[in-house]
Amino acid sequence: MTRTLTGTPKADGFRMPAEWERQCNCWMVWPERPDNWRLGAKPAQEAFSRVARAICDHEPLTMVVSGGQYLNAREHLPAQVREVEMSTDDSWMRDTGPTFVINDAGELRGVDWRFNAWGGLEGGLYFPWDHDDLVARKVLEMEGVPMYRANFVLEGGSIDVDGQGTVLTTEECLLNHNRNPHLTKAEIEHNLCEYLGADKVIWLPRGVYLDETDGHVDNFARFAAPGVVMLTWTDDQNDPQWEISNEALAVLENATDARGRRLEVVKLHQPGPIHITADEAAGVDHIPGVQPRVEGERLAGSYVNSFIGNGVVVLPVFDDVHDEDAILTYKRLFPDREIVTVPGREILLGGGNVHCITQQEPSGSR
Amino acid sequence: MTRTLTGTPKADGFRMPAEWERQCNCWMVWPERPDNWRLGAKPAQEAFSRVARAICDHEPLTMVVSGGQYLNAREHLPAQVREVEMSTDDSWMRDTGPTFVINDAGELRGVDWRFNAWGGLEGGLYFPWDHDDLVARKVLEMEGVPMYRANFVLEGGSIDVDGQGTVLTTEECLLNHNRNPHLTKAEIEHNLCEYLGADKVIWLPRGVYLDETDGHVDNFARFAAPGVVMLTWTDDQNDPQWEISNEALAVLENATDARGRRLEVVKLHQPGPIHITADEAAGVDHIPGVQPRVEGERLAGSYVNSFIGNGVVVLPVFDDVHDEDAILTYKRLFPDREIVTVPGREILLGGGNVHCITQQEPSGSR
Repeated sequence: MTRTLTGTPKADGFRMPAEWERQCNCWMVWPERPDNWRLGAKPAQEAFSRVARAICDHEPLTMVVSGGQYLNAREHLPAQVREVEMSTDDSWMRDTGPTFVINDAGELRGVDWRFNAWGGLEGGLYFPWDHDDLVARKVLEMEGVPMYRANFVLEGGSIDVDGQGTVLTTEECLLNHNRNPHLTKAEIEHNLCEYLGADKVIWLPRGVYLDETDGHVDNFARFAAPGVVMLTWTDDQNDPQWEISNEALAVLENATDARGRRLEVVKLHQPGPIHITADEAAGVDHIPGVQPRVEGERLAGSYVNSFIGNGVVVLPVFDDVHDEDAILTYKRLFPDREIVTVPGREILLGGGNVHCITQQEPSGSR
Repeated sequence: MTRTLTGTPKADGFRMPAEWERQCNCWMVWPERPDNWRLGAKPAQEAFSRVARAICDHEPLTMVVSGGQYLNAREHLPAQVREVEMSTDDSWMRDTGPTFVINDAGELRGVDWRFNAWGGLEGGLYFPWDHDDLVARKVLEMEGVPMYRANFVLEGGSIDVDGQGTVLTTEECLLNHNRNPHLTKAEIEHNLCEYLGADKVIWLPRGVYLDETDGHVDNFARFAAPGVVMLTWTDDQNDPQWEISNEALAVLENATDARGRRLEVVKLHQPGPIHITADEAAGVDHIPGVQPRVEGERLAGSYVNSFIGNGVVVLPVFDDVHDEDAILTYKRLFPDREIVTVPGREILLGGGNVHCITQQEPSGSR
């Protein structure tokens, strides 16, 4: 077993780097479950492959694949992608993978959070989730990265960091009774700071409207740089998202980060709203206990849900009137990175987007 | 994908090191199939754990485990053993794993042979073997070791090398019509030399009596040092093994190795003969198409089937009158290594022994 550490990253001088810091690898999981991904996940596999291709031109990428899909995935992926076999329940590496932390000497460690499929038996998205709960641990053991095991339910998409002491999260998710109901808000803040090596938590009330993750912050508001936050927005006052986004804007405009800076908020107008078509819904297996995919259901589309890698940002677009503005905003925010767009609708149909299906491993030694 | 090389190791200046050369890791697979290992493989799991414990005191060890057995294996294995998930059909890493080769600069590469479960549909031991045929490739891809793909059916247990140009093998296995029937003996020799980086093949006619692998050489005759070969022996002229061992002795006494040396032959008297008891046979599932385990069947017990690691030899013993002599012989042959004995009967019941369930990775760079 990889070395299991007592204590916490913060106590040991470790912190979660910001996503724009140097990475040595990006982790993804190959999608396949036919009760979440339509048409036997074949369109999703193509969409994930597009994301992998965009990333692996810029940094190493490891694709986690089940035994049954090992050879098929190989046919779809570029030769330089490293494939490793692992059992999973679905394909959201942001939420099931480890959170990597480093110290000033560049040593690398990982946090293995508890995972309950976004809410366990009270509003979670599927049962069982035993394979997914082992993903972080298996990754760390395979790579020989020492591990902290946090006795705390958390998905990586529910937090965002600036790498300088500040954590962004939502009350809708982190205070949800289906995550860590035995802990107070203060105790949850303490855990976040200890395991992410942070000093301050900024709480937004809610995430994107109807986001099935219970409002993951990574689909709604994320740091683009220290002191700069991207926020999902709408100009339509009749859209339920309007109130949610304004509520968050007020919080952000009145907040300071861990270093005492005021925050610049950069609005990214949401696409759509996007709804599931009859055709799309018809391609998904219906299994009791698994989140259904129903015609007409509104999807939580967002341009915030991108991946920031070495020299690149991979941005989902939706063949939408707002695509162009999103691209321009990203170009302004990340002038030194290539902005590569990928079709985001197929990933969105499964419940998330580019950020949700990726997990960066910062450069460091073991 | 890990880099796939054209050409051959020999052409590129690579060779398979002898097992006594420095290693960076030992690979094993966790046993579980109940139609080969009695009582749900629980006694075998304990036996494999004993082997792993003996090795991991001396060098790193990686245990390949199925998703279903991942947590159970963890409970049985020492903390320093690295566990990685992989699908397999059975647990013979010697035969399904890669053959690692190095060059003078210490670079490491691997050979992925074709695998057909010791004979495919003509006398093979089980069907299907698709997972096992992918083990070598998955190991090399996980580790980032460049790979040669040999279009040649071979199990690692069917060859042995002195690391100085000589290969030892048996006609019973390598010339068997169920391995590479389209190739002549000369073509097979050529392949062995090209993929093992060798210059000379010494052919023994047969392996241990009733060995279900079709006479793997690693259960019968192996190099203990350059110019020194251990040979399974019997003094009982009425035992079918007597003729087989004498036949091999004659070949070895008349052979020279790749460097022109005569060979010293060190006899290791076989244990037993050992037969399957009614109790042992009763614990194995009976599945058509899988090698049956029948009461009274003679097992191919041998002291040659050991693992040579850094500073250690792991030697199977059988609570047999010949154990003591085997231990003394090994102490003489490997004066600088600790000789650690492990109970070999449980592994033998599955069709092999310590050498068959291990695969050394030589120290090298990638």
